[in-house]
Amino acid sequence: MANIYAVILAAGQGTRMKSKLYKVLHPVCGKPMVEHVIDQISGLHTEQIVTIVGHGAEKVKAQLQDRSAYALQEEQLGTAHAVVQAESMLGGKEGITLVVCGDTPLIQTSTMEALVKHHEETDAKATILTAHAEKPDGYGRIIRGEDGSVSRIVEHKDASETERAVKEINTGTYCFDNKSLFDALKNVSNENVQGEYYLPDVIEILKAAGETISAYQTDSFDETLGVNDRVALSEAERLMRARINERHMRAGVTIVDPQNTYIGPDVSIGSDTIVHPGTMLSGHTTIGEDCTIGPNSEIQHCEVGNQTVIRQSAAFDSRIGSNVNIGPFAHIRPQSTLADEVKIGNFVEVKKAVFGKGSKASHLSYIGDAEVGSDVNIGCGTITVNYDGKNKFLTTIEDGAFIGCNSNLVAPVTVKKGAYVAAGSTITDEVPEESMAIARARQVNKENYVQKIFPKND
Amino acid sequence: MANIYAVILAAGQGTRMKSKLYKVLHPVCGKPMVEHVIDQISGLHTEQIVTIVGHGAEKVKAQLQDRSAYALQEEQLGTAHAVVQAESMLGGKEGITLVVCGDTPLIQTSTMEALVKHHEETDAKATILTAHAEKPDGYGRIIRGEDGSVSRIVEHKDASETERAVKEINTGTYCFDNKSLFDALKNVSNENVQGEYYLPDVIEILKAAGETISAYQTDSFDETLGVNDRVALSEAERLMRARINERHMRAGVTIVDPQNTYIGPDVSIGSDTIVHPGTMLSGHTTIGEDCTIGPNSEIQHCEVGNQTVIRQSAAFDSRIGSNVNIGPFAHIRPQSTLADEVKIGNFVEVKKAVFGKGSKASHLSYIGDAEVGSDVNIGCGTITVNYDGKNKFLTTIEDGAFIGCNSNLVAPVTVKKGAYVAAGSTITDEVPEESMAIARARQVNKENYVQKIFPKND
Amino acid sequence: MANIYAVILAAGQGTRMKSKLYKVLHPVCGKPMVEHVIDQISGLHTEQIVTIVGHGAEKVKAQLQDRSAYALQEEQLGTAHAVVQAESMLGGKEGITLVVCGDTPLIQTSTMEALVKHHEETDAKATILTAHAEKPDGYGRIIRGEDGSVSRIVEHKDASETERAVKEINTGTYCFDNKSLFDALKNVSNENVQGEYYLPDVIEILKAAGETISAYQTDSFDETLGVNDRVALSEAERLMRARINERHMRAGVTIVDPQNTYIGPDVSIGSDTIVHPGTMLSGHTTIGEDCTIGPNSEIQHCEVGNQTVIRQSAAFDSRIGSNVNIGPFAHIRPQSTLADEVKIGNFVEVKKAVFGKGSKASHLSYIGDAEVGSDVNIGCGTITVNYDGKNKFLTTIEDGAFIGCNSNLVAPVTVKKGAYVAAGSTITDEVPEESMAIARARQVNKENYVQKIFPKND
Repeated sequence: MANIYAVILAAGQGTRMKSKLYKVLHPVCGKPMVEHVIDQISGLHTEQIVTIVGHGAEKVKAQLQDRSAYALQEEQLGTAHAVVQAESMLGGKEGITLVVCGDTPLIQTSTMEALVKHHEETDAKATILTAHAEKPDGYGRIIRGEDGSVSRIVEHKDASETERAVKEINTGTYCFDNKSLFDALKNVSNENVQGEYYLPDVIEILKAAGETISAYQTDSFDETLGVNDRVALSEAERLMRARINERHMRAGVTIVDPQNTYIGPDVSIGSDTIVHPGTMLSGHTTIGEDCTIGPNSEIQHCEVGNQTVIRQSAAFDSRIGSNVNIGPFAHIRPQSTLADEVKIGNFVEVKKAVFGKGSKASHLSYIGDAEVGSDVNIGCGTITVNYDGKNKFLTTIEDGAFIGCNSNLVAPVTVKKGAYVAAGSTITDEVPEESMAIARARQVNKENYVQKIFPKND
Repeated sequence: MANIYAVILAAGQGTRMKSKLYKVLHPVCGKPMVEHVIDQISGLHTEQIVTIVGHGAEKVKAQLQDRSAYALQEEQLGTAHAVVQAESMLGGKEGITLVVCGDTPLIQTSTMEALVKHHEETDAKATILTAHAEKPDGYGRIIRGEDGSVSRIVEHKDASETERAVKEINTGTYCFDNKSLFDALKNVSNENVQGEYYLPDVIEILKAAGETISAYQTDSFDETLGVNDRVALSEAERLMRARINERHMRAGVTIVDPQNTYIGPDVSIGSDTIVHPGTMLSGHTTIGEDCTIGPNSEIQHCEVGNQTVIRQSAAFDSRIGSNVNIGPFAHIRPQSTLADEVKIGNFVEVKKAVFGKGSKASHLSYIGDAEVGSDVNIGCGTITVNYDGKNKFLTTIEDGAFIGCNSNLVAPVTVKKGAYVAAGSTITDEVPEESMAIARARQVNKENYVQKIFPKND
Repeated sequence: MANIYAVILAAGQGTRMKSKLYKVLHPVCGKPMVEHVIDQISGLHTEQIVTIVGHGAEKVKAQLQDRSAYALQEEQLGTAHAVVQAESMLGGKEGITLVVCGDTPLIQTSTMEALVKHHEETDAKATILTAHAEKPDGYGRIIRGEDGSVSRIVEHKDASETERAVKEINTGTYCFDNKSLFDALKNVSNENVQGEYYLPDVIEILKAAGETISAYQTDSFDETLGVNDRVALSEAERLMRARINERHMRAGVTIVDPQNTYIGPDVSIGSDTIVHPGTMLSGHTTIGEDCTIGPNSEIQHCEVGNQTVIRQSAAFDSRIGSNVNIGPFAHIRPQSTLADEVKIGNFVEVKKAVFGKGSKASHLSYIGDAEVGSDVNIGCGTITVNYDGKNKFLTTIEDGAFIGCNSNLVAPVTVKKGAYVAAGSTITDEVPEESMAIARARQVNKENYVQKIFPKND
């Protein structure tokens, strides 16, 4: 099999995005468009990937890092001019070069594989990835000869009535014999209305030289969607979302409403997990089997075990065990670790805390910068007072301790094994094992006092 | 009118669901598929319903209980073999037998009624429920004779070019003369590639015997959707959801976005109630008139009065009166009863508590295992300390009491009529009528102390 | 250019809405239908708008106030009869009169402008706004003569086979020569099955008098949607939502899922702001640039600066600065003002409070009726005790103060500049500058007490 190279066109500004953010960095399902393209190209085992950068070059490089080589297109003089920037890296090499736009986030490895295969089978110097468009207006049309090979691409504005009726369109993705590509690029001119160097002219040049031009038509028009504005961005998002969700459903995940469930491309979910609507799973989140996730929950960069329930809650950068019950309305902040069978109930915030097996904070609590043992019961309204205005301190609650409601644990402080904190106490000193700590005033009843403070009018 | 029997095919494993849960038990809009089928068949006033069970037989029986008789298909040898299992119950009876798949949750009573009616009117021995499919690929095609009666069903793979052009397809639901069905079943063979006994062969056998075979074409292709994987499951869910929501809208409920509103089949809603997006209503929930429900709320098994507002909240297994205001971000847990004009505000959890008319818990409170009278004001941060680590106890707050902010009511405890609890108190003893209870330390100001604890650098 | 008048038909009851609310007052994207119509007509610079009111007349007037004149149609005797009610205001005037239904909320200024322009260019006495309907069943068909002018409108029920094949339908919006309109109205009879006076009869009368009748066909069938029941209402909502969201996307706002994002017609959003799913923005809300809004957030009548993040929260009638961070699960109630760099964290309620620059209330607090200076740190669980059961009082927290966790600030009370409140304190008196206030009991540990209260069984 031939060597494969890839050139990703990622230098354009994307004016219609109306954004300070460089176009190919706009995320689709949480990942920059150009990174989706790299991900898919990576499936091809290419010899080298060259990303043509221009506007926002440094940011694109920072995003993709060493997943690509880079060539800088200082001025944006057209797609052919863009590819020429890769010449110092690719020129003269034997092999096949794919040219893919960095703003086509939906393209898939399998489609590019099929394109390359068709290219090789038809012994072509250039092969165009085409698609069938129900409404081809605006697209370049593929005019094929009798043998099925491509005679030419005709732009919409230049097309005759007959040509406009053609529904096979140019998607802008190409496969070239690498040497032929760079040879032909030398002859592309910018003598046109925009004064730009256009990559499709390479096709014409090769054709004029008597070379075979092929076209591989993909079934999936959607894959070829190019994102030029935020309407298209939302459309790409919708299609990518549907693709990701379908993959999970086919693997045995129930997604109650795939149109209203937002799962990033790098999330994994075990079978028989049910995802309820209004749920966002992002980053490198892993969910186990038999979980119930959602409704209306957001989970980012978390590792979640099996049989765990997370409802109407938000969780970030944490490890959550099996048979854990979270929510509704809980917030797990980064660097938290919840062992199996932990319960975090409503209006509870956990931050940078470890909970041992079976421990519970069921209501209205803030447990931050804390180490909580196993089988601990944290009463409603408990607060770890971790911050004195200058520094943050650790709270330690050992196995089997019981923290009464509305307690303050003023860190640094330790509640030892099996200890008991009475409701309403502010704990500033260590509570010894099996001891009870209490820190509250005794109740006084002032009889008939209400009449005194709020005299009733007769 | 003839006796009607129904056989529900519910024995298959559903391998493509990739699930530990038996296929026909997967819920659609919160109810197992096969139960939707039973619900709809029940509208026909059948003499008897026989569900053919196999994989997961015990769980299916446990779900449907005495709504059906059961016949066990120990090995799954095909749909004809499945129906044969019902012979000991139905064989020899006079009447009409419907055969319906347990994985077609969208089928409706009216469609089956029309099928039976057509069957009787055409004096057929078998009538096939058919539908018009825009994309008939994969379905068995209905080949009709000149008189409109069915000549045969041809499977997609066996169909000629002309037959494949036919868009009337077999939905897999049938209506038979009961005796003819069981007679014909005796002659079905398994001499085919899969070695299975196929129910459509009955059609061929009856036809060969010179009997009339009819086909009733329903307008609603959607109704005939069979669920074989989770993609189809989500599609069934979407269609069922649209059907349920349309019913409510036609009855005078405003559903702002029916695509993003999830209402179970057994929920009732009064007219002029507005349901905002991201709302899930499930179980036997009843909502009155003129309510505002949602956005982003979940209500399960609740009875809600009129003019009640529930926003960004979750409520379960509770009774909620009229003119009640809940949320945002409130959580009503099971066995709660809220009388009219109650207010439960943000970050308030109510559990197994009764609230009398006009009482309020507006902020950041936990009221569990409590009896709250009428016109009680529960201040922000109030906690019923209902659990001592071993047992749960009751808190009683009588009419007109005022509970100051951040109070603990350590149960068992009673705050009597018109009493007043000062903010920040932990109440352990009964507060007499019209009395004020206070349990807190007196404030001490340590002047210029901040400089001492946090010395400023010059 | 001719004077333009507009008549809005808004007198019908809307029986199929099954509502106590008068039909044209039902909101679409938060605004009553008839007000959308007025908004769009206002773009035309009309001389006068007359709204025909009947059912719910007073409420319609109260809604539209002086944006329209009103004519009362006491009995609803048909659309022609409705227009006749405007005669005392418009009769005899030179100019053009648009007649628009109050239940077509999607109609746009540009379409009505094109209608008027076509009317003038074709020198017609009446011009019908028509649309191409893929499924024209139920609509009146437009029968054009060879010159393209309208021969007649034929109702669906009266149409021949050939006429039914016509897909150009009458939308119910018209443009008339004002004098011709009122002259012709005199000749409309109610001799028909319903006994009503129909406006389309004016077309026939004018045609019979030899006048030219034109038809202007809009591309946008959706715009002509008339809302007669709640299913159509939800459809109008969907289309309006898509239109609004597309406008924002084209202007540089990222809307991750426009199908699940609910933005009112009067909301403005700066470029590069990202709106996550499940978000409702309503009323006169203004969002700045580079904000992150949502998921699952509701913002009504708020002014929000730049770079602000609002997640899983609700905010109403408040001013929120730049670089503010709100949520998840926060609730900003009316009349609050948050300066730049304020942080309001999880389970925090802010009500009628001012926060100075850089102040924070990060967890589980209620700050109501309060003036908070800049750089104040409000600890977790802080409650402004603003209500004594009779009256509400103000809490003042000056610059740089630190409020310890679980504190009660019993209003009226002031914590002066740089002061420090110890965790767990109930503050009833002023805390002087740079002083520390403490009001809590000292901790007592009762050793081995747990064994006493919960003796372990051996």
